[in-house]
Amino acid sequence: MEKVYIYDTTLRDGSQAEGVNFSLEDKLRIAQKLDEFGVDYIEGGWPGSNPKDTLFFEKIKKIKLRHAKVVAFGATRRPGKKVNEDPQVENLIRSGAPVVTIFGKSWDFHVTEALKTSLEENLQMVYETVSYLKNYFQEVIFDAEHFFDGYKNNPEYAMQVLKAALDGGADWVILCDTNGGCLPHEVYEITKKVLESFPSAKVGIHAHNDSDCAVANSVMAVLAGARQVHGTINGIGERTGNANLCSIIPNLQLKLGFRVVGEENLKKLTELARFVSELANMPLPKNMPYVGDSAFTHKAGVHASAVLKRSETYEHIDPSLVGNRRKITVSDMAGRSNLKHKLEEFGIKVDENSPELLKLVEKIKELEKEGYHFEAAEASLELLCKRHFGLVKNYFDFDAYRVLIAKRHTDDKPVSEATVRLIVEGVKEHTAALGNGPVSALDRALRKALEEFYPNLREVHLIDYKVRIVNESEGTSAKVRVLIESTDGRRKWGTVGVSENIIEASWIALTDSLVYKLLKDEEEGLT
Amino acid sequence: MEKVYIYDTTLRDGSQAEGVNFSLEDKLRIAQKLDEFGVDYIEGGWPGSNPKDTLFFEKIKKIKLRHAKVVAFGATRRPGKKVNEDPQVENLIRSGAPVVTIFGKSWDFHVTEALKTSLEENLQMVYETVSYLKNYFQEVIFDAEHFFDGYKNNPEYAMQVLKAALDGGADWVILCDTNGGCLPHEVYEITKKVLESFPSAKVGIHAHNDSDCAVANSVMAVLAGARQVHGTINGIGERTGNANLCSIIPNLQLKLGFRVVGEENLKKLTELARFVSELANMPLPKNMPYVGDSAFTHKAGVHASAVLKRSETYEHIDPSLVGNRRKITVSDMAGRSNLKHKLEEFGIKVDENSPELLKLVEKIKELEKEGYHFEAAEASLELLCKRHFGLVKNYFDFDAYRVLIAKRHTDDKPVSEATVRLIVEGVKEHTAALGNGPVSALDRALRKALEEFYPNLREVHLIDYKVRIVNESEGTSAKVRVLIESTDGRRKWGTVGVSENIIEASWIALTDSLVYKLLKDEEEGLT
Repeated sequence: MEKVYIYDTTLRDGSQAEGVNFSLEDKLRIAQKLDEFGVDYIEGGWPGSNPKDTLFFEKIKKIKLRHAKVVAFGATRRPGKKVNEDPQVENLIRSGAPVVTIFGKSWDFHVTEALKTSLEENLQMVYETVSYLKNYFQEVIFDAEHFFDGYKNNPEYAMQVLKAALDGGADWVILCDTNGGCLPHEVYEITKKVLESFPSAKVGIHAHNDSDCAVANSVMAVLAGARQVHGTINGIGERTGNANLCSIIPNLQLKLGFRVVGEENLKKLTELARFVSELANMPLPKNMPYVGDSAFTHKAGVHASAVLKRSETYEHIDPSLVGNRRKITVSDMAGRSNLKHKLEEFGIKVDENSPELLKLVEKIKELEKEGYHFEAAEASLELLCKRHFGLVKNYFDFDAYRVLIAKRHTDDKPVSEATVRLIVEGVKEHTAALGNGPVSALDRALRKALEEFYPNLREVHLIDYKVRIVNESEGTSAKVRVLIESTDGRRKWGTVGVSENIIEASWIALTDSLVYKLLKDEEEGLT
Repeated sequence: MEKVYIYDTTLRDGSQAEGVNFSLEDKLRIAQKLDEFGVDYIEGGWPGSNPKDTLFFEKIKKIKLRHAKVVAFGATRRPGKKVNEDPQVENLIRSGAPVVTIFGKSWDFHVTEALKTSLEENLQMVYETVSYLKNYFQEVIFDAEHFFDGYKNNPEYAMQVLKAALDGGADWVILCDTNGGCLPHEVYEITKKVLESFPSAKVGIHAHNDSDCAVANSVMAVLAGARQVHGTINGIGERTGNANLCSIIPNLQLKLGFRVVGEENLKKLTELARFVSELANMPLPKNMPYVGDSAFTHKAGVHASAVLKRSETYEHIDPSLVGNRRKITVSDMAGRSNLKHKLEEFGIKVDENSPELLKLVEKIKELEKEGYHFEAAEASLELLCKRHFGLVKNYFDFDAYRVLIAKRHTDDKPVSEATVRLIVEGVKEHTAALGNGPVSALDRALRKALEEFYPNLREVHLIDYKVRIVNESEGTSAKVRVLIESTDGRRKWGTVGVSENIIEASWIALTDSLVYKLLKDEEEGLT
């Protein structure tokens, strides 16, 4: 089984999508998730282009990744300048990433029109930048921007650009369909030509989806000999997006027999897709191949019963191979065995046929119908499961909360005030606090009531707060899903709350976050 | 220029999508729209399978179509029965459609396992049903269900099925990738094989998107010689959907030089896509190739200025060819020339060096630093620009608002109450309302105060509400960005509000939405 290398650019090209705006924290979480999943390269950003990307490379160095190599992205040196005096190139080195990708022009028209330089100087820029960076990085990857358009316009020049990169010592040359307009047969033929010209070169493909063929183009390039594929999770990216790794990986691995990620890792594909969609705040289209909610949904009665008998009759693959599941119209069979597996992770052993497990499956299904998603909120799932088995003590009882937001025309900002009433260890606590907004006021009042009893809660702070509107099923009014990410300096955890009311959804996620901290400290004997 | 025939199955296969439920009226409207656009065949449904489909064929007969042929869809006769005694076949004839498509099994495994009959009897069913229906229809199309899977399993038998249909007089044989799992190179090779075996046959392709290659598979089949393509508008359909005609048509016509629809008609593609998405109640993904809102959006400053100079540098086609348009999003990287361009769209002409333009650029940059994004909120941008040039009148003055959210342990849900005080045309309005959450309460109270004076606001309703936490720069406290999408049935617009306080951010976006409606109605003389 031949290996195809996966190069993820969700954090760089993906973040160019309209509406996507990853925080530093998001980027670090996604990088770790990608590493766990088993991608080979993670392009983290363009160091120096903005403070967030620069910080990313600083922080990611301190995180031990299992398998993936972090990649800094940048450009060739500027025309007419020395490579060792180019601040953009300097920033790449300073990033400390083990691998660098630089892009250069391979379409003659772009060299003269956009770059305003000579074709010869462009070749020099490519050669010098690659060979210079080879001194500082384990690997240098060259992105041949607009390669296919360039090849169609001037094949000799496009090939010369690749040669300059290879002569400079590039470990990989990547053929980019930057405008995304290519069709599969062209990609196949041109990639073949490249490999005929440079038989020992390692070649990759970087496709965009403008002609709705990015996945097919990537697959065809691999069939023609490319062995590195660039793309993003869920195909996010500017305009129509990048090639969708969530489709490419199973196509290559399950259908064409390439070695891409481990078989067990592939089962985490659906979870990864949903995780990124949550953090990107881009709802996953239901009909997304392999990972979408409807990807293995059977509606028609005939289909459904045939599928249950022999799944290959109406399914192109077994959904469990990518961690998705078959849905038979409304009533689906949520995975008991998956949950059992999850419970084991939480330290709970149950028999697969135990009625308690079945009840828990039902409860989770019910919550999912209401709009809960536990992919990015595992702490809430852990609490839910442990509560179900009576493993979480009652740290406090809720009595009431109240939040008031008021603004007058003479005010610059509204005033937000919250009051909270709880019973903690038999004591009635009634607290009030102001905040920048209703949620921060509520958070402060809640902590005021609890910190006296549980001083370790002072270590907890919120690092992220996300809100999503969910319209789960027709006819229901819209619900709000709040995701909170917390840390106590040693751990990080996510919690979730769903309600028609954003304040209530926030309250659920907030209290789960604090209870989780109390539970974990207790489990570890820290209190 | 060779002709490729487009066979639309939005009304039949498309309506199998989860969440799609066309009314009879919807189906008739879509059929007319498809006809105007210039598709060749419109598959209307399966007569007899449900009353709606039966009625569709009755009604559509009375509507004069310009070009398209209406097609009734059904199955071959049942095993062991006479074709002229099969009520399902009888219903097809009774539909009165000029063209019929019948599907039959071409995967041996399905014949024996699902149909529970012999391979020989299945061939008879195909032959007899086709030849019988030839007496009643102008054209008979044969859908070879599971053809590719069938071919891979038993090529001789799959070919015999096609032969039976052709011997029976089928005008077209359609190769169906029913499970949608094929890859482009397989479709190409197998379609080639079919045409080698039946050189005079007219062959078509019917692809599903389970391996994310439906568009590519359709294109590859055409390259191999297929001349009829089945698909749906926006690729709607069960599971991962059918092949998306909105991508296939421009790929074939603009890139491969086939004659598909008229050049002028192609310019209605985006409108058609949006029309169907509205009736299907499936929001069009922004990143959909060719027709999506973001398909020709340029964000980065370098790209944007290059695109304005020479669009082919960063665009695979001219967006106007498919009726879409280029969007230069105003981002902090964007400069004066982009804004000038935008102002022209709003009907405001200014000199590029005017100090007023410069001030506006500064104002927008300031807002973007605060966390505003105008990409999805063009109405807010338009209001901002028009206010800057004194083109928006003061529809009301703000005095105060107040929102209270309260929950007690005995309550199921929190109570949300809002009060609003405004001065409208000199009158002090003081209103109160409840809501599911704080924002809906505020929205209701605001409308209560305004609708009396501006009854056309009753036409406005919110179709989407999005919340995003923005941490623009470290050290600042988190801000909330609220995006609201509104419609009045004729237009759709997006507005944005940013604040540390979610209620205030929502208030800004809500009031902008209503003011925008008032402004546009006034501009169009509707008030």
